[in-house]
Amino acid sequence: MTLSPDQIEAMTRFAGRLADAARAVILPYFRTDMPVDDKADLWGGAKGYDPVTAADKGAEAAIRALIEAEYPGHGILGEEYGEKTGTEPLTWVLDPIDGTRAFITGLPLWGTLIALNDGTAPVIGVMDQPYTGERFTGNPDGAFLERIADSLNRQFAQVSLNRAVSGKLVSTSPETALGTKRLKTRACPGLAQARLMTTSPHLFRTPETQAAFTRVADRAQLVRYGGDCYAYAMVAAGQVDAVIETNLEAYDIQALIPIVRGAGGQVTDWTGGDAQAGGSVVATGDARVHAEILALLNA
Amino acid sequence: MTLSPDQIEAMTRFAGRLADAARAVILPYFRTDMPVDDKADLWGGAKGYDPVTAADKGAEAAIRALIEAEYPGHGILGEEYGEKTGTEPLTWVLDPIDGTRAFITGLPLWGTLIALNDGTAPVIGVMDQPYTGERFTGNPDGAFLERIADSLNRQFAQVSLNRAVSGKLVSTSPETALGTKRLKTRACPGLAQARLMTTSPHLFRTPETQAAFTRVADRAQLVRYGGDCYAYAMVAAGQVDAVIETNLEAYDIQALIPIVRGAGGQVTDWTGGDAQAGGSVVATGDARVHAEILALLNA
Repeated sequence: MTLSPDQIEAMTRFAGRLADAARAVILPYFRTDMPVDDKADLWGGAKGYDPVTAADKGAEAAIRALIEAEYPGHGILGEEYGEKTGTEPLTWVLDPIDGTRAFITGLPLWGTLIALNDGTAPVIGVMDQPYTGERFTGNPDGAFLERIADSLNRQFAQVSLNRAVSGKLVSTSPETALGTKRLKTRACPGLAQARLMTTSPHLFRTPETQAAFTRVADRAQLVRYGGDCYAYAMVAAGQVDAVIETNLEAYDIQALIPIVRGAGGQVTDWTGGDAQAGGSVVATGDARVHAEILALLNA
Repeated sequence: MTLSPDQIEAMTRFAGRLADAARAVILPYFRTDMPVDDKADLWGGAKGYDPVTAADKGAEAAIRALIEAEYPGHGILGEEYGEKTGTEPLTWVLDPIDGTRAFITGLPLWGTLIALNDGTAPVIGVMDQPYTGERFTGNPDGAFLERIADSLNRQFAQVSLNRAVSGKLVSTSPETALGTKRLKTRACPGLAQARLMTTSPHLFRTPETQAAFTRVADRAQLVRYGGDCYAYAMVAAGQVDAVIETNLEAYDIQALIPIVRGAGGQVTDWTGGDAQAGGSVVATGDARVHAEILALLNA
């Protein structure tokens, strides 16, 4: 179904409320000595160490409860609690903490990912980083970065707001937003000038995917590891030119697609096709770099 | 020379003023489309891409000017402007932006490093991350994390202060500090339970150092890339158990030594000796993990 501009605005605000709910659950756990379970143990260790915490589970439960209360007909697909088929064509696609390894090591590069899929594609996406107070939002109006005060100190929520500095987005967190900035990818003529990111060299588990990534990395100006969802946000912000990953799930990528596209970038799979199912993904800020990377990945 | 407790307190406050000066220069450049020079070009590219910006140079110039005005007899060693021999035994050891690659890719993991060396060892260290508003400080009293408001929004500097929640450190940025927390490394019985960080797998340039790192990494519970100085701060904060790096300069490590040690951890070179000259470095939170790593590096 195609959402009207009013529906886009209402659902973007609601996605902000979902991110507020997740933030309230997650932030008290960050940088504490919390128990960390290993999901890989359940699967015989085949995927290696796969940490999960009460913060992941509690945040997804809080988001699902809000959706079920307000929009009981919507579908839900979440990392921790699986799939609920809806009676309407809209589905929320959720990863409460993308980058649990960053989360448990104390690095502020994890994020809460919330996408709304209209049955054909993700049309609204939120990536929320509560510790830095950053909320990246993408929708058909564009891509935006809000800074939100309560991450730093809740007492600041009372301070007068300085909202919507630029950009059309109405604040998704009206009580605590400090300002909103429109995001735009940067121009980059080619891979030799490009800053490339991926979460880890160990993401590429076969000799073929490893060789494909290396063909690209060897030609990039700079390769940086350790980004998770934050790397895609930096493509939207015009700081990074490309992200290449593999073995993603749908909930790892759907929220990031409207953010990168809203800022003028592109997200596809390694063959140039639709990336919303996850798998092997390329996100870039400049179409010329995208074409060069696809050619090298498939060389 | 041995500094008195009063001198430690005065010099820790002064180090905070130096970090304030650097932050004021650097933050306006962060996430802008600033020109990036490649220092490696000057050296025939032998070291690969080595970015430097006006923010690096401007911040070091601001710090040096303050030191020269207040303590003209002190020595200075900085990444961008080299060495000034002092007439007193105290030397400031500076890296205005440690992690310039993180800086230009928009990631809030870079930091301003400021150490005071008493002629035998670094005794005071500051790692300041202006975008997250985090200042990590170490001295003989311990290690502390302050959160500072102006990084998020300068208007908040006027808000009433909620200072020194715990810990003995007197705020190093009295106008804008939100609170101070004492840092403590976490207990970790052995490498199999350890979270290990290093900045990049490409840091290990020889087959020997690569093999040595791999012997350790293969036994760790989790390996995370992409930390720069922030990884050491996370050892002090009890989130990460070990950092292993090589090819460091003195200014890359001196500020981090009092922070890790003040939190109860240890920093040595790969043979267990003094790390203040840089080179190959291991930092850990638990001495048992340190011993296990040194044995594997030298196996």
